[in-house]
Amino acid sequence: MTNIAIDAMGGDFGEKPIIEGVVQALREREFNAILVGNPQKLKTLIPQDLNKFIQYEEANDVFAMDENSTDALKRKDSSIYKAIELVKTRKAKAVVSAGHSGATMSLATLRLGRLSNVARPAIATLMPNIHSRTLVLDVGANVDCKSEHLFQFAIMGEAYAKEILNIKKPRLALLSNGEEECKGNELTKETHQLLKQLPNFIGNAEGKDIFNGSIDVLVCDGFNGNILLKTGEGVASVITKLLKQEIQKSFLAKVGYLLAKPAFRELKTHIDYEEYGGAPLLGIKECVIISHGKSGPKAIKNAIFQALNFSQSNINSVIEKELYNYETK
Amino acid sequence: MTNIAIDAMGGDFGEKPIIEGVVQALREREFNAILVGNPQKLKTLIPQDLNKFIQYEEANDVFAMDENSTDALKRKDSSIYKAIELVKTRKAKAVVSAGHSGATMSLATLRLGRLSNVARPAIATLMPNIHSRTLVLDVGANVDCKSEHLFQFAIMGEAYAKEILNIKKPRLALLSNGEEECKGNELTKETHQLLKQLPNFIGNAEGKDIFNGSIDVLVCDGFNGNILLKTGEGVASVITKLLKQEIQKSFLAKVGYLLAKPAFRELKTHIDYEEYGGAPLLGIKECVIISHGKSGPKAIKNAIFQALNFSQSNINSVIEKELYNYETK
Repeated sequence: MTNIAIDAMGGDFGEKPIIEGVVQALREREFNAILVGNPQKLKTLIPQDLNKFIQYEEANDVFAMDENSTDALKRKDSSIYKAIELVKTRKAKAVVSAGHSGATMSLATLRLGRLSNVARPAIATLMPNIHSRTLVLDVGANVDCKSEHLFQFAIMGEAYAKEILNIKKPRLALLSNGEEECKGNELTKETHQLLKQLPNFIGNAEGKDIFNGSIDVLVCDGFNGNILLKTGEGVASVITKLLKQEIQKSFLAKVGYLLAKPAFRELKTHIDYEEYGGAPLLGIKECVIISHGKSGPKAIKNAIFQALNFSQSNINSVIEKELYNYETK
Repeated sequence: MTNIAIDAMGGDFGEKPIIEGVVQALREREFNAILVGNPQKLKTLIPQDLNKFIQYEEANDVFAMDENSTDALKRKDSSIYKAIELVKTRKAKAVVSAGHSGATMSLATLRLGRLSNVARPAIATLMPNIHSRTLVLDVGANVDCKSEHLFQFAIMGEAYAKEILNIKKPRLALLSNGEEECKGNELTKETHQLLKQLPNFIGNAEGKDIFNGSIDVLVCDGFNGNILLKTGEGVASVITKLLKQEIQKSFLAKVGYLLAKPAFRELKTHIDYEEYGGAPLLGIKECVIISHGKSGPKAIKNAIFQALNFSQSNINSVIEKELYNYETK
């Protein structure tokens, strides 16, 4: 059975939602969880019948959200450090952490190492679209990129779409300020030319194309990826707030809202990031899934499923092979 | 009375919505409209009682949306060329055009000229936030920027907020991937240091801050500005579509929607770009307002009001003075 290391202490809300997510995941799929944190605390949260699927790895330090990721290497007793070490020493196949994403990213890169030919690992995330979801990368790790980096992100994103999301011919696009080839800044124009080598590259895409279901994988630098994510969150939240304000103004609207509530709930499920689990870190040896600091049990459960699918797939060797092919062309 | 030149032919839907917008504007405020296009066609759309506020400038060519803006200078009989010339020859104080924005931008820059000390004009746009609206610039004119350019955009945006939007102390922010000063790419980190000179600069802002009402002016390069705009549109449209789909699935939800409809209508008004008119081109001599190609009458009416407010203000001399002050510091 696959062992998954869970950083049980890193999230914004402590260990409870994380352990609840582990419990939910164990009720649905077979795996062993290695919980990294304070065993005494954690044990009380595990139902008796699941004990046989759980191991503990003691860690007495938590890397806090406001700390500087450059210190992560020194914090050898932190839950994220120990979780990564479990993978490094082959005791676990994957890590799931809702802790400090910068620390996770740098420990993964420094302790587990990059895949061959990968210049920079990237954080990929799934965003909802009208039909299903779009994979966007990079969303934060690399704010200043060269075209070669974006080219590698494309290879890695395509591999994830094929191997994990089971999309045979993922439609791959480059984020730009217009669909025409001539549109873009210096970086994206140069990248566009490199991406033409890839048979699944369908050209430039605009911010709106993430949501209308016309693409499967969107490539961008980490600065733009972050802006996309935060803008998306911002618009969704302002629409919800304004609608609530307007509904509160009238009795009929309140009744109407109650009647239509299941539709709102369905909408929420569709656009809820918790449904999509976490963000896989692509380009490193082994598997690391970065979850949102505010992850609830559902997000953790889905992140564990992602980790299982990832570590049971061939994605890393596919990435290495593809990059090798294009390097030697 | 102020003369406003209206490019009557440039929009995606021909002259009708544009002229309807002019008519609506004339019913609310005093000005003279110079309609640029085919007078025979246009005359039939004007109610008799408004004839005294209308002049015509014949133009028999339309610069199409799929043409290359570099050709704009040669198209001397196009409606946008002639509209800009009316301002150049002081027959009008401002231009409103829903035509090819690249052509409008380059004709404005080349025929009217930049304000002194302005390196690059910028397109500014208003986006809805939870309380009112946020001015974002640049949103398309300059895809590759240096920090000096972004600094100038900040000065120009601040002047617009003060002189046209009547905000005494506009909260000015720089788009980045995190609020902390250390966050950003090379360009924004450098720009952050320059912007510290400005008393109203409140630091970095993220995509979500456009919508939560915490800032008044957001500075970014044209590439990121475009991504912001398109992502915002995309999210709003996918939420609406998904909600409609869900509502269609249940009778009760449909009834609920009907009851809550006024609330939805209010929401739509708040986030409708037509309410905000067009996008002022900042940094050129005189006043040019770029409207969305799909502008309906309301958007044109509001763009005309923007043009009136702009040309009755001191914004251009404020921009020149401010830039001069910082240049010589």
